[in-house]
Parts: sequence; structure tokens; C-alpha cells
Amino acid sequence: MSRAATNLQIDSARLWGTIHETAKFGATPKGGVRRLTLSAEDKQVRDWFRKACEDAGLEVQVDALGSMFGLRKGRDMSKPPIGVGSHLDTQPTGGKYDGILGTLAGLELVRTLNDAGIETELPICICNWTNEEGSRFAPAMMASAAYVGDFTTDDILSRKDAEGVTVAQALDSIGYRGDAPVGRQEFSGFVELHIEQGPILEAEGKTIGVVDSGQGVLWYDGKIIGFESHAGSTPMPLRRDALATLSEIVLAMESIAKKHGPKAVGTIGEAVIAAPSRNVIPGEIAFTVDCRSADAGIMDALDRDLRTAVAEIAARRKVEVQLDLVWRKAPTHFDPKLVDAVENAAKQLGYSHRRITSGAGHDACNLNTVIPAAMVFVPCKDGISHNELEDATQPDCAAGANVLLHTVLALAGVAS
Amino acid sequence: MSRAATNLQIDSARLWGTIHETAKFGATPKGGVRRLTLSAEDKQVRDWFRKACEDAGLEVQVDALGSMFGLRKGRDMSKPPIGVGSHLDTQPTGGKYDGILGTLAGLELVRTLNDAGIETELPICICNWTNEEGSRFAPAMMASAAYVGDFTTDDILSRKDAEGVTVAQALDSIGYRGDAPVGRQEFSGFVELHIEQGPILEAEGKTIGVVDSGQGVLWYDGKIIGFESHAGSTPMPLRRDALATLSEIVLAMESIAKKHGPKAVGTIGEAVIAAPSRNVIPGEIAFTVDCRSADAGIMDALDRDLRTAVAEIAARRKVEVQLDLVWRKAPTHFDPKLVDAVENAAKQLGYSHRRITSGAGHDACNLNTVIPAAMVFVPCKDGISHNELEDATQPDCAAGANVLLHTVLALAGVAS
Repeated sequence: MSRAATNLQIDSARLWGTIHETAKFGATPKGGVRRLTLSAEDKQVRDWFRKACEDAGLEVQVDALGSMFGLRKGRDMSKPPIGVGSHLDTQPTGGKYDGILGTLAGLELVRTLNDAGIETELPICICNWTNEEGSRFAPAMMASAAYVGDFTTDDILSRKDAEGVTVAQALDSIGYRGDAPVGRQEFSGFVELHIEQGPILEAEGKTIGVVDSGQGVLWYDGKIIGFESHAGSTPMPLRRDALATLSEIVLAMESIAKKHGPKAVGTIGEAVIAAPSRNVIPGEIAFTVDCRSADAGIMDALDRDLRTAVAEIAARRKVEVQLDLVWRKAPTHFDPKLVDAVENAAKQLGYSHRRITSGAGHDACNLNTVIPAAMVFVPCKDGISHNELEDATQPDCAAGANVLLHTVLALAGVAS
Repeated sequence: MSRAATNLQIDSARLWGTIHETAKFGATPKGGVRRLTLSAEDKQVRDWFRKACEDAGLEVQVDALGSMFGLRKGRDMSKPPIGVGSHLDTQPTGGKYDGILGTLAGLELVRTLNDAGIETELPICICNWTNEEGSRFAPAMMASAAYVGDFTTDDILSRKDAEGVTVAQALDSIGYRGDAPVGRQEFSGFVELHIEQGPILEAEGKTIGVVDSGQGVLWYDGKIIGFESHAGSTPMPLRRDALATLSEIVLAMESIAKKHGPKAVGTIGEAVIAAPSRNVIPGEIAFTVDCRSADAGIMDALDRDLRTAVAEIAARRKVEVQLDLVWRKAPTHFDPKLVDAVENAAKQLGYSHRRITSGAGHDACNLNTVIPAAMVFVPCKDGISHNELEDATQPDCAAGANVLLHTVLALAGVAS
């Protein structure tokens, strides 16, 4: 590699500027971002991103699920590009970095190569994957899941949000149902930069997480059917209270995850009482469950223990509880060669680093099933994410982007 | 009393017919009624009721909170009337009898006296009290509470529903903000017929409940402020989960009510997660609590034990829990003379009967603080109420209306 390439650094201030420029699309009063996938705010950031890519000389394609691909030509166009990027959608009360750092670091990487006049052997492709968050449409990471063949495009297009709007309708409403078939864009490898969304790097004072694995995920849809009756005149022993039932399930999930910890988590994130009223015993509740572990054996144990607990609670309380597994994602073991490339880049740049497991799911975890993939983590304040208080420092974001840059240079090769 | 009056019976088929005729206003597919106070459906039943009263020769007045009073003249108009009636509003998924039986039995009583050509000494007044249910506006039984001076009319007019609509706006929108000042309509006594809304009469095979007392009520508004974060990457020990906190509070309320049982109940009927998402740990939840007992000492113990439990749970989980008492109603001890009158009517008519405590709150409980009052209960199927499955038999409804008729004849006196 030329000396110019070896010493290359991204422009920290420019990267920081683009992050904060895009944070205005869906900005919340508390300093976070509300940019649900395929919303009007998502269209704003997509339009901005498309123009920025085109201004950087990239050819932008949009696939049938709205994922965006900005291609920078390489010397050898017979080979698929090295992919980078992440997502630009957010949680309902999300932050400014989750997904956004990785996508805009891809843009910064291209701008840096352009400024230095460096051509790579392989082309480079910056990706913005549709609906990574999964809070408007299930499942999360739906576009990358369809890309690897876990779902058909038609299946995903027919998924509905809480208002009954389909993915297809939402794509059409913002003009992002593209022509490219899902999966047509090939990659030689994929590297995703992301904030850790957990407390480990910060606690240990490390700048770079070399992500070698990711947690598997179990998602359930649940429904409790008890019996609605009068809160004043129904004696305690005769009740079939759906909320008391849910309460036992929530606490059972918590204790099961702790029992299998530290490599396990379990959460009930949504619970909606049907026809709630102050003086009516709740009769019906819909809820969701999210369980994770990086260990396949622990995932099986979480599933088994949760089902056993739910069955016991339902029988004892004489209520019906439905618990349907709607998504199961196996733990991820990232490509050893790409993981080494990330680690080497961190070493070469002199950043403190450690191997780490991703607690959250990411598009790179999906892609890893068909493409060699890896991830780079940088610390976030107090491990907080999916929250308007999500925060990261400019030096850490720049360090992550530099590791991404040098990983990509190692994988794509510099044309001589 | 004349022989005609002594043997008088209401028209069971006519009463049954009016109950089912009004059940069409807000009828639900499952056979229940959704007729929230001051809604379009409530206007329909009010218009029907006003016309039915006028057709029966009554003079109808509407007060400033929309309560309706249909007056049948007595021989001695210097004395206030004996009041009967209840309410025509329902829960969001309510039944056909709660409140409705008592109001329409008042109409049936007047029609029966008209048909028999019987004049009473005291006048008789059929009441339809606004917002007994409390599911659209808090507090429940707001109009009778304002009537007895627990709240000012202006205070109640300014109360808002979940959409921010005030009672004043809702009254105006259906044309039921009347001219009569709240409290101007006087009563010599008040008798309310109602379904039991509990399982006791049915279980013991009794037709009539002679209600001598009513439970006191504690209503709280609660809020839990934990911390929203990522469901995948936040280790279990670092969480401040608002839903797990609520779950402990729900189960604590249940066990506290059982500990002080059988004369105590406690319910969390509403719980709403702010910005819920499947992969986000709930950070904030609003909830309500309803506690009841017919014993003032037990009410104090429920309040004390709940506050102690909430404080312990909040401290242990490092979350903030606000718990505000928004309403406290003391237990009711109905007027002994009127309770005896109800019991004598049941005896005279040969119905099986027992003394009973009301589990639910009723307008008669409010009125009893300033007017001699009593209640008549009839069984309902499986004790179910505040539910579309609420059911009662025609013979039981007719028996209750006959007890109401003869109680009123005894109290109002028959003109000779």
C-alpha cells in the first residue's frame, strides 16, 4: 500500500458535521431523533443521503425494499464491491448515532478516498438498509433478512404497521420502492461500524470493539385472555386478571434471563390492555417478548424455561396465554478473516481495542450468513441506546471511521 | 293503602322490552353496549328517555351537568319527591343492565301507577345521573358527587377526557347542558335498583339484595419513570425497567388486597407504556389503581400497605414511582328506615332476600350523605358486570322493579 494510503485519516470534523446535519430530520425536543422507517422524516434523510452520494460521484441504486446502494467504482469491476454502511431509520425515541454513524462513516470514507485521489482494486458500496429498527414493521433488519433469503420480497412488502399500512404502501408513499431486485447487489465482504449500545468498551476504557460474534434473537407475540369484570364487586379469589398474569410473566422472564446470565437477556417491551378502564379488571392483553443470547444452547434454554413458566402461570390463574415465536435468529459468528482485518486496522492505528460480542442485532449479522462480514464498535455514553440520551464522542466516532477506512483499504486493495 | 295498590305489579314484559329497546343505542357485536357518557350514543338514549318520560306525563328537567329528572306530581307538592333511577351510560365494553335496569324500572314504575290511576302523596322523580361509570371522565359518579357538594359544578365542567375534551364541551356537543343548577332538585329519599355486579345472590339462590352498605373507594394515578434502553445490549443487572416495576406493584396490590380480604379488593385497570417498542426496555408507564373496602379501617390499611410496597419496589429497582390519591370515598351506611322499607317490600312480595354490601360504587352512595337513601339488588349471571357478557333474567329484573315500586309506595304514600 502506498504511504499516502497507509497514513490516510478521515476528516473528523466533516464526519461530525454530517451526523449532526442529518440529526435534524426527525429531531426531538430532548435532543434525540424520531425517524421511523419509511416515514416523511425517513424520506428527508434518504433524499439528503442520495444527493450526498451523487455529489461524491457514486451511482445510487434503490432495491424493491427501499435499501439504498451507493457504488464507488474500483479498478477491477469484475469483482463485487466491499460493502459498508448501516441504516438511517431510528426508534420512536431514538438517538443520533445508532445506524447513522456507520452509514455516514461510509460516506466519509468515500469522500476521504476522493480527496486523496485513491482508487481501490475492488469497488466500494455504501448501504442504507431499510427498517433495521423493526419498531414500525416486524421483523427488525427486514431488508437484509430478505437480501439473504430469510423472507421473500413479497412477504416483506405485505407486512403491516400498527395502522394497517403495508411496507409496499409505505415505500410507494415516499417514492422509495426501487427497481433493483432484492439480492442483486453482490458484495465481496461487508463491514459495519456501529456504536456498541452497551456499557463494556466505556467501562474498560477501550476505543474499538472488534466484534467477533452477535447474539441470537427470539421474538414472540403474546396474548393473554382472562376475564373482564367489575373492579369493585369481583372478589379477589374469583378474578382472572390479564394484567396480574402479564406481571407474573414479566417477572418470570426477568428471573429466567438472570438465571442464564450473564450471556442472556429477556425483555417485554410492549403490552397493551384491550379496552382499559380504571374500574374494570383487565380481560385481555397483547404483549411482545425479546430474548437474546450469543450461545445457541442458552437460547434453547430460554425458550424452554419461558414456555414452562407461561404454562404454569396460565394454568394456575385459569387464563389463556398464547405465545407465538415469530422470529428466531441464530447467534452470529463473524468471518474470521474480516474480524482479523478489523483488529489489524485498530492495531495499525494504535487504538486500544478488544474482541466483543454484539448485544444488539445488526444487518451485518444477517449478511454474514451469505457474505464474509464483520463489525467495528465504538463506545457510547453509559451504554445507552434506543433512547434520546444516546451519545458518543467525536474522537471515538472518528476512530471508528478510521478503522473502517483501513479495514476496507485492506479488503478492497489500493490500485497501484 | 288500597287493595289496588297493595297487589300492584309492574309489567314485566314491558320493562324487558324497554331494556332491550335502549340496548340498541351503542350495541356491540358481542351483545353488550358501548355508550360512553355524553357520546353520540348517550345522546340517543337520552333523547329516547326524555320522550318516554314526557309520554308518561312527567315534566323533565336537565341540570347543568346533564343529569335528567322526570317529575311525576304527587298530591302534596310542598314536599320533595321520592327519587328513583340510576344511569344510562356504560363502560367501553359494558352490558345491558348496569344502571339501565334501575333507570328504566323507574319509568316502568311510573307507567304502572299511571295505568292503575294511582296518585301518591309525595311526588316521584326518575333520575338519570350523568357519568356514573367514570371511564370517559374522572371521577365516576361525578354528577351525584357534585349534587352533594363534593365538587363544584365548575370543577366538574372543566374535567377532560383522554382526548382533552372537557365535560362542558361534551355536554354542549350533545345539547345536554341544562338550565337547572346542580342540587336544586330536592328529594325526600332516594332508592336505586341495580344488578348486584357480584356473585353472592346467585350463589345463595336469593332474588333480592337489601343493600345496607357500600364499599369505600380509593383511586390513585400512578407513574413509573425508569430508563429506556436497548433490549439486546443492556445487561439484566443494569436495567431500570418500568414494566418490571409495574409488574411488582400489580402483584403487591393483589397480595395486599388478599391479606385484608375478604372485605377488600385492589385492581390496576389501566397501564400505558410510553413509546413502546419490541426491542426497547420500557422507560415510562402511567397506571391507575382502584382499592375498595366497606370498612374504613381496612381502607386505611390498604393505602398504607400499598404506599409501603411501592416505596420499597421503587428504591430497590432504582426507579421513580409517583402515586397520587385522586379520589377517596368513605364507606356508605344506608339510611336504616329506607333499608327497612326495601326489606319489608321484599317480604311483602314473598321474594327470597338477604342484607348485602355493595361492592361497586353507586350514585345512591353519594346521595346517602345528604338524603336518606337505599338500594335494591337483583342477581346477575356469574356476578359478571362491566363486560359485554353481563346478563340478568327477566323474572329477577321484574322482581327488583316490584320491590322498587312497593318501597316507593311505602315512602311516598298513596293518596286516598
